[in-house]
Amino acid sequence: MQIGTPYLVFLGDAKDPLAAKTGHGIVHWRPQWCLGQLRLDGCRADLGIADLAPREAVAAGAKTLVIGTVSPGGALSARWVPTLIAALDAGLDIASGMHARLDAIPEVSAAAERNARRLIEVRHSEQTFAVGSGRLRSGLRLLTVGTDCAVGKKYTALALEREMLLRGLNAQFRATGQTGILIAGSGVAIDAVVADFISGAAESLSPPAAADHWDIVEGQGSLLHPSFAGVSAGLLHGSQPDAFVVCHEPTRTTMRNVATPIATIADTIEQTIAVGRLTNPGIRCTGIAINTEKLEEQAAAQMLEETRERFDLPACDPLRFGVAEIVDLLAAEYPV
Amino acid sequence: MQIGTPYLVFLGDAKDPLAAKTGHGIVHWRPQWCLGQLRLDGCRADLGIADLAPREAVAAGAKTLVIGTVSPGGALSARWVPTLIAALDAGLDIASGMHARLDAIPEVSAAAERNARRLIEVRHSEQTFAVGSGRLRSGLRLLTVGTDCAVGKKYTALALEREMLLRGLNAQFRATGQTGILIAGSGVAIDAVVADFISGAAESLSPPAAADHWDIVEGQGSLLHPSFAGVSAGLLHGSQPDAFVVCHEPTRTTMRNVATPIATIADTIEQTIAVGRLTNPGIRCTGIAINTEKLEEQAAAQMLEETRERFDLPACDPLRFGVAEIVDLLAAEYPV
Repeated sequence: MQIGTPYLVFLGDAKDPLAAKTGHGIVHWRPQWCLGQLRLDGCRADLGIADLAPREAVAAGAKTLVIGTVSPGGALSARWVPTLIAALDAGLDIASGMHARLDAIPEVSAAAERNARRLIEVRHSEQTFAVGSGRLRSGLRLLTVGTDCAVGKKYTALALEREMLLRGLNAQFRATGQTGILIAGSGVAIDAVVADFISGAAESLSPPAAADHWDIVEGQGSLLHPSFAGVSAGLLHGSQPDAFVVCHEPTRTTMRNVATPIATIADTIEQTIAVGRLTNPGIRCTGIAINTEKLEEQAAAQMLEETRERFDLPACDPLRFGVAEIVDLLAAEYPV
Repeated sequence: MQIGTPYLVFLGDAKDPLAAKTGHGIVHWRPQWCLGQLRLDGCRADLGIADLAPREAVAAGAKTLVIGTVSPGGALSARWVPTLIAALDAGLDIASGMHARLDAIPEVSAAAERNARRLIEVRHSEQTFAVGSGRLRSGLRLLTVGTDCAVGKKYTALALEREMLLRGLNAQFRATGQTGILIAGSGVAIDAVVADFISGAAESLSPPAAADHWDIVEGQGSLLHPSFAGVSAGLLHGSQPDAFVVCHEPTRTTMRNVATPIATIADTIEQTIAVGRLTNPGIRCTGIAINTEKLEEQAAAQMLEETRERFDLPACDPLRFGVAEIVDLLAAEYPV
């Protein structure tokens, strides 16, 4: 699944900045790909980049209109349809991470066909995969894992990629979720793969690579989440990470959408090694990323210091203080 | 997915008894549902039951033609098509566990529609499931797990169900694979479920039940198989078993289709408890089922005795010596 870049980011009639979270993520992590934004009347979000019409964006080189907002209830707003058709008529593909399918709208489907443009629906991929082989591949891999869902695994992976590239390391973010795929321009929506092929899909996502090349794989779910551990286990086996970073949200008491208590960092490290060593006996934890958003600065710094001492590992809040410590360890302890 | 019973079992032009393995399994485990067999010219398999034409079977009460054989290369033989159409015209549904889709054959699809009959393709279910909740349900559950794929998990589960029913216990086999579903008449092909819903599908397969009711859930893959551990982990979490039985094939050295060494019984017990306790803290191993087919009788008995002593658990070969020992333990140690 390869999305053409650069992008025109579509915000529709987003009712507030939060509704444009995906768009903000794309601009934050891939500013060089974002030629402009396209907003409808009444849109209350702003990515701080040029407002462009589809034909202007195409003239500037844009290849894809990326839907960077959510619509109320996850449905595709009828108000968007004329703009989507105009984008296709201007020569853009459309990429969407929404549940609602673009190709279910006959006018949009017809416009794509008429212009020989693609509707890239990252939640509804027709990609097929081989069954996982378990064979160790060349190159280095890091997986972000979580004590729960939605604890910052994507953000941490992207922050690690950015810091590693800044230092001249050979690193590449590998997306496993809808938003990550729109940011990276490619990837596999791992939770939408048929169960038999989870580890095979993860293997195809991080192929054999040069000895100094790091794939920084976006984690999904948690090995200790009763809804999603199957996805997490298959992703772990297929990614065969040399290194993993545990992501955690310290104020949460139960896992997302279930009554199960949130996993501890210690249990998550133990379980990740117990499961992950099957396909990479050298797997080890190389850091802890804590989302300290709900803590005061001093309390946050103290929590990180305590975590650092307790586990004898780098501990950081990627958003607040960066991930330099973790990259220090990776740079020092792995061959380049 | 509920298949109407009783069955007419279709063997096509099976080239030898092994090609009719599914049919033999259905007759062995559900003889009361098998009114007859339907064989084409040149068929070299025989289930030892009456040969019936579709109309004769319908007259005797049959509801479904079940495909009990494999065709060369997994494709649907063109030679079968007139018979499949005749079965639909006679008023039978057709149930198939094959990769090739019945509804991809226009004449078969048309005949099903014309007669308002169902084409039940257990590998290609359109069932949808909720995400797993992890909530503990009433009733008792046993899951068969494996040191590898294809080590007797289905056979062991069916043998346990039979022995428990013979003793008047309240037990029900729950199928998670194609053949198991054809035998049981219902179930979920768990490896064909979208990854996000593995544990949810397993939850729906063994719903809340009476306190003395045992669901005997057919395991899939192995927690220690690099291709399929995601499926196994989700099935384990969703099944939330109170008890599990480890199935093993002692002469195998590597896992099926991969270079990974076969898991040990001890590692399988440890890992199953480590993962399974998330949704059922009381999970325990209640027996070991060893396929001793490749050993002489005395060597087999000795291996079982050694296994029994080493793990302090019942150890048996379900096919050769039965599963009475395991059921003794279940009957003695769980509330009824």
